[in-house]
Amino acid sequence: MMTARLLVNGVVTTQVSVLDRGFSYGDGLFESVRLVHGRAPLWPRHMQRLADGCARLRIPPPDPLQLWEEAQRVSDGIAQAVVRITLTRGVGERGYALPVLPQPGRVLAGFAAPTPGDDVYRDGLHMRVCHLRLAEQPLLAGIKHLNRLEQVLARAEWSDPAIAEGLLRDGHDRVISATMANLFAVIDGVLLTPALDCCGVAGVARAEVLAIQPNARVAELSLQALSAASEIFLSSSVRGILPVQSLDEWSYVPGALTRQLQQHWLNLGFSMEQDG
Amino acid sequence: MMTARLLVNGVVTTQVSVLDRGFSYGDGLFESVRLVHGRAPLWPRHMQRLADGCARLRIPPPDPLQLWEEAQRVSDGIAQAVVRITLTRGVGERGYALPVLPQPGRVLAGFAAPTPGDDVYRDGLHMRVCHLRLAEQPLLAGIKHLNRLEQVLARAEWSDPAIAEGLLRDGHDRVISATMANLFAVIDGVLLTPALDCCGVAGVARAEVLAIQPNARVAELSLQALSAASEIFLSSSVRGILPVQSLDEWSYVPGALTRQLQQHWLNLGFSMEQDG
Repeated sequence: MMTARLLVNGVVTTQVSVLDRGFSYGDGLFESVRLVHGRAPLWPRHMQRLADGCARLRIPPPDPLQLWEEAQRVSDGIAQAVVRITLTRGVGERGYALPVLPQPGRVLAGFAAPTPGDDVYRDGLHMRVCHLRLAEQPLLAGIKHLNRLEQVLARAEWSDPAIAEGLLRDGHDRVISATMANLFAVIDGVLLTPALDCCGVAGVARAEVLAIQPNARVAELSLQALSAASEIFLSSSVRGILPVQSLDEWSYVPGALTRQLQQHWLNLGFSMEQDG
Repeated sequence: MMTARLLVNGVVTTQVSVLDRGFSYGDGLFESVRLVHGRAPLWPRHMQRLADGCARLRIPPPDPLQLWEEAQRVSDGIAQAVVRITLTRGVGERGYALPVLPQPGRVLAGFAAPTPGDDVYRDGLHMRVCHLRLAEQPLLAGIKHLNRLEQVLARAEWSDPAIAEGLLRDGHDRVISATMANLFAVIDGVLLTPALDCCGVAGVARAEVLAIQPNARVAELSLQALSAASEIFLSSSVRGILPVQSLDEWSYVPGALTRQLQQHWLNLGFSMEQDG
């Protein structure tokens, strides 16, 4: 079993109230922040998405300075860390109605970062197309909320350890994302990533890619269109820029844009080296 | 703040691990069971739905006898009780993949039952039409899973205490349910309730109504069709058969079928009296 360093509302404990609405209804948000030697290059983007999520769910926003201080505490001594920040609507009465005086719950958990391995960054990962179709809910699309059963069910579609990710589509055959990363494709020389107005999570790594690639386009993307892609890669706040080597029977080779973005990630201060 | 009697995996405690996937992803199920002097007339239906949900989510099913014994413990001495049973996939590694050796988490919480009041059972409740449209996800439809942000957002649409419930539709303008109850309507003398193949929760009270009303029909139902209903009522495992007195500007009077089903609920052993 993994070990994690935990802070719940600022207190060192492994437990949260069973009456917390995060547990009762998935009524909250989370962020998975990669830290390298205590630095988190995408921290402002995480805080922006968390604030957006709080506004959408009407949860009082957290204090980013407090979160930063606690993120440092739970990742102290872990050179390559991931800090999961969970923010919930807190303990509430039974029933869906919002508490009159909400006291949001705050959990920070520090872990050693996953290590995809040099070969993944060099050659790419293998991916499959999932059967599950993401449901369309514009009121929840884009934010990283705690209702993640669709991702759990999609990830449960395969157990072959050689397959690292699954491609998710919506009910209109539109490509949306991977199960835990966003997707980009270069088609006819143009960098494209799916629109996330109706489902999917707007990743902070995706936001970083879009910010530094002003010619990139957010567009509808069909599975068939991916057959003609010259490059496909995933973006993840935890794992960075991951080339896709295969999608079911289709094969790809990491191209110039993928390499350029991987270099950008290194320039940001992210390292792909193993921990320790 | 409410008081609740709590058992977590059989132990008297108010806390659950922050690494429980129920808290991380809403990866689990729940049941809200009404008990009257220790009896739960709809218990077999609750256990059936829970088993169905476990099969759908691939969570090892619980032992109903153990749940029954624990439900008695958390409701002991509460004449009119609600026991919330929460079943999760348990503590897991970071990430969506299913644990290799899942150890489901089990939380039982006993509360005093809500008391809608005699006038609600006699005259009916007031209801509004919600703006939120339920997303369609056939893989999750019908089961009572922990991903309940849609219900939270729908319930947050109003704060007028005179409005007891909200009507939920899907993206195809089909009526589905209330936020925490199922809906029935009598139209042209036929008892109808919406199909729940794409969204909504298949309530145990709904199942009871359908079982004793063999002529009832599960059908598509539009909002406009409700304008012509001679009776509308809600079914809830916790609150029983609740007549609808108004839906926005439309008014209704509880009819013969509503009264017949309320009598059936009394015959089952449910009481509408206040606690104590």
